[in-house]
Amino acid sequence: MTCGTVHGVGLGPGAVDLLSVRADRLVRSARHVAYFRKAGRPGQARRIADELLRPDVIEIPLEYPVTTEIPFDDPRYKACLAEFYAQSTERLLALAREGEDIVVLCEGDPFFYGSFMHLHSRLTGHVPVEVVPGITGMSGAWNATDVPITWGDDVLTVLTATLPEADLERRIRDTDALVVMKIGRNLAKLRRAVAAAGREQDAWLVEHAAMPDQRVTRLAEAENVTPYFSILLIHGQGRRP
Amino acid sequence: MTCGTVHGVGLGPGAVDLLSVRADRLVRSARHVAYFRKAGRPGQARRIADELLRPDVIEIPLEYPVTTEIPFDDPRYKACLAEFYAQSTERLLALAREGEDIVVLCEGDPFFYGSFMHLHSRLTGHVPVEVVPGITGMSGAWNATDVPITWGDDVLTVLTATLPEADLERRIRDTDALVVMKIGRNLAKLRRAVAAAGREQDAWLVEHAAMPDQRVTRLAEAENVTPYFSILLIHGQGRRP
Repeated sequence: MTCGTVHGVGLGPGAVDLLSVRADRLVRSARHVAYFRKAGRPGQARRIADELLRPDVIEIPLEYPVTTEIPFDDPRYKACLAEFYAQSTERLLALAREGEDIVVLCEGDPFFYGSFMHLHSRLTGHVPVEVVPGITGMSGAWNATDVPITWGDDVLTVLTATLPEADLERRIRDTDALVVMKIGRNLAKLRRAVAAAGREQDAWLVEHAAMPDQRVTRLAEAENVTPYFSILLIHGQGRRP
Repeated sequence: MTCGTVHGVGLGPGAVDLLSVRADRLVRSARHVAYFRKAGRPGQARRIADELLRPDVIEIPLEYPVTTEIPFDDPRYKACLAEFYAQSTERLLALAREGEDIVVLCEGDPFFYGSFMHLHSRLTGHVPVEVVPGITGMSGAWNATDVPITWGDDVLTVLTATLPEADLERRIRDTDALVVMKIGRNLAKLRRAVAAAGREQDAWLVEHAAMPDQRVTRLAEAENVTPYFSILLIHGQGRRP
């Protein structure tokens, strides 16, 4: 029997017509689809793909055992997630070895801060694994502002808001264009770092990019943002003939 | 009469099935398509879209009057390109004012170091302008290596190889993950900067990502690379439970 393939498929930033043609075909034809989600939540990847799935699709939700309850630097966090990824890998391996192809739905681009990477590294060498790149969430975010992110020789720095405040401030001072991901509980710290770097007036928060509830707010005026689905941007101002 | 819309459409890194579904529909239905190219060359954007264009499509090639013949920092370079962008804008404006929609074919993502940005800023406020984000060339490049670019809290720095050598070296030392665009004539300088930063063994050159002649080479072993269509990558090594 031929082994099935595990496809890590980038769904892009949120709109169903921003999947690539290749991704769209794979998702529409998939008999088995897996996706990560927080327990009790529908999951963002599952939501993007909703109208594309076959009526007889078999769904494999992979539910994080922990998200923000344990700090990243606690050894229990690492152990708990390692076991979760190992178990998820076993589920997909067993199915692929029965000859079934599996599509793993991934927000944005699978190789850019994606959970699928933790399966990819464990599956590789055991079953065929294919990855379809996607439009990143950050491309969706700068598109939502209707302003280009980088011009000419602009330096773009991509940070996660999980970094220490002093690191954030130093790196925000030292870049032309900026993207900050993983804002979550770190919004207050990030605001302080942006202000300390003197760039609060240039910074924008984009919530739910490419989705019906998309919202673009100047950081200085941001009150009730939903930090989990937000990306912070500062646009470059480089050479423009 | 209703004014036509100018659509800046991201085509992604190179494969025709890596256009988004939205971009694919727009390109297939377009009566007027414009694209940038170097005089005498087919143009990379035009080539990606080749099999999608209508048989009766009307093509508007926008030919750069200069590419690398004049240095970026020469005032003549700026003046020459400014006039070119102004004339290109006038061509598209005239057509849109006749009620015609125009699709401008853009490699990668239009708002990420793209030539379309120079039309976008000039057209905005005069005719309707819509942008469709695309999979960036850098996503195509890291996908070609089959290795994720960023994990956990990795910092990603995107540079252009046009920067001074000392700036390149300093920034390459100070990042987890790295992407370098616009390599062109700067490959020798970039190699020295990567080596001086002690990262030559971690660096990869990706040529023609997502295209039939895609090639991935360790920088230390790169001999006959085609620098114009290359992206340099260093993968992040961040937290991975």
